[in-house]
Amino acid sequence: MRAIVFNDQLVLDTNHPDPTPAEGEALIKVRYAGICSTDIAITHGYMGFSGIIGHEMVGDVVAGPESWLGKRVVCEINCVCGSCPTCQGGLSNHCPNRTVMGILNRSGCFADFVAMPTRNLHELPDAISDEEAVFVEPLAAAWQIVKQVAIDERMRVAVIGSGKLGLLVAQVIATLDCQLEVVGRNPHTLELVEKKHIQATPIDRVPRRQDRDVVIECTGSPDGLAIAQDMVRPRGTIVLKSTYANGGQIDLAPAVINEVNIIGSRCGPFADAIASLTRRQIDVRAMISRVISIDRGIEAFELSGEANTVKVLLKINPR
Amino acid sequence: MRAIVFNDQLVLDTNHPDPTPAEGEALIKVRYAGICSTDIAITHGYMGFSGIIGHEMVGDVVAGPESWLGKRVVCEINCVCGSCPTCQGGLSNHCPNRTVMGILNRSGCFADFVAMPTRNLHELPDAISDEEAVFVEPLAAAWQIVKQVAIDERMRVAVIGSGKLGLLVAQVIATLDCQLEVVGRNPHTLELVEKKHIQATPIDRVPRRQDRDVVIECTGSPDGLAIAQDMVRPRGTIVLKSTYANGGQIDLAPAVINEVNIIGSRCGPFADAIASLTRRQIDVRAMISRVISIDRGIEAFELSGEANTVKVLLKINPR
Repeated sequence: MRAIVFNDQLVLDTNHPDPTPAEGEALIKVRYAGICSTDIAITHGYMGFSGIIGHEMVGDVVAGPESWLGKRVVCEINCVCGSCPTCQGGLSNHCPNRTVMGILNRSGCFADFVAMPTRNLHELPDAISDEEAVFVEPLAAAWQIVKQVAIDERMRVAVIGSGKLGLLVAQVIATLDCQLEVVGRNPHTLELVEKKHIQATPIDRVPRRQDRDVVIECTGSPDGLAIAQDMVRPRGTIVLKSTYANGGQIDLAPAVINEVNIIGSRCGPFADAIASLTRRQIDVRAMISRVISIDRGIEAFELSGEANTVKVLLKINPR
Repeated sequence: MRAIVFNDQLVLDTNHPDPTPAEGEALIKVRYAGICSTDIAITHGYMGFSGIIGHEMVGDVVAGPESWLGKRVVCEINCVCGSCPTCQGGLSNHCPNRTVMGILNRSGCFADFVAMPTRNLHELPDAISDEEAVFVEPLAAAWQIVKQVAIDERMRVAVIGSGKLGLLVAQVIATLDCQLEVVGRNPHTLELVEKKHIQATPIDRVPRRQDRDVVIECTGSPDGLAIAQDMVRPRGTIVLKSTYANGGQIDLAPAVINEVNIIGSRCGPFADAIASLTRRQIDVRAMISRVISIDRGIEAFELSGEANTVKVLLKINPR
């Protein structure tokens, strides 16, 4: 099969062996997949991953338990043991024995086929198109914030970063009817924000007043946390969504002095993501910059890192 | 008067002008003062402070409102406006207009006299000696943790760092009857921990298992946060007490992946510190390494940074 493989460098392997589903797994033929900033970070050494990358996808179950055969699905990415104390305690996304699709000890979805446990699968309603379905995984990560921080209508909330994740987070937070603004570097993506009737502020024009109740850091850069500390009020909350390779020079003294609460936030509830796409609460279509065949996957990666490119989708086995 | 002044370098000025108390302030003749890691950080550029340093002290009110005259006092260090929205909202320690004794736009207490607002003063009970009283300010900062994080007897709590602050924090947390251990580099200070019947583990022998519910970072070094991230469980809490100049190379990816809650923690409740010293719940006497006259203040600073030195007190105007 075709697969985009990272092993010190990124290559398109046109003759990769097909995956063999293990007990409890289904084989999924991938229709579309999405390139995420985490994928780009992996190509810079994040997680020390090597293998087939990719963790945002939609596809069809082509082998596995009969009840799943033929279904169009998206996949939760954490494959967990289900029996350790962490899983039994309800935090299975944090299972210490987990593998993670395309990120940790498990092949990803930038390939014709991927094998995943059936308990990770969610069948999609017809209302969600294939291209939209690719956004379910990152949109779930955006909904996770709402599970971790209580946000009400009196609160001032800033999202820093108007890229792939920032645009999803902004739309999720906008459903809460708080005082929201998005701070970003890119006039093109800030324009997308404004089209959603959300206040957009260029990063170099944002007052560095420590008066926001919640600041959500989605820049994908260590600089973002410094800006977040400049913006959050004393005893306020910073939500950290960014991951990047190798850390960076970070001064956390402002967070100590202002007694700020910094909350790490990762994967989230697929059900909320699917529901919000179904009821058209979140619009992801404007975020799709390009749809490119996996045959030109390396080029798609390069494009994905360019300014003014938001989301690049890989077309793999479209219907 | 005599004063230890930092202005690019640390000097003992034997002919410094006496302070003049402003409206609402008292003049305090300092008996003893304590050298804190923050003072050492200031001499490395932290906060960009210049002037008389020092913020841990006990002294006598020698001028000011009659009701305070002759009283032996300790001082809260944040001098606040009382009228801004932050103060009115109950977060006066975070007043944006504040000055801070020996740290931010206000002279410190390593001097014969210091002027402080009377609302910052706490009269001391006789049960607390002068040398113990110097610890009220840092001990209050240790009690602050208990106001920010709920700790119960089932929880595994680690304190990283067995220095000036770590030894106070460990004793405060030990009053909560949880599963506590202190992790440190220095065999001498770890021995002090063990004498308090608290489990002490050398830092190079601590298992880097992510299984502690709460990790309290008191090392005063950017490395401490990396160790804390190695020790805290998914969705656990790291309390950051350390401040240091210039930040450091920090990788926060583990905190994002494990959805850790990092809470900055600064000044705390003087009443709790005074009460716990009065009822002999906390023992600070074993922490006093040396008591040195302010006339040898520069030497005292040098000693304060040495291994096996915990707390150095400055004797200024003892009774």
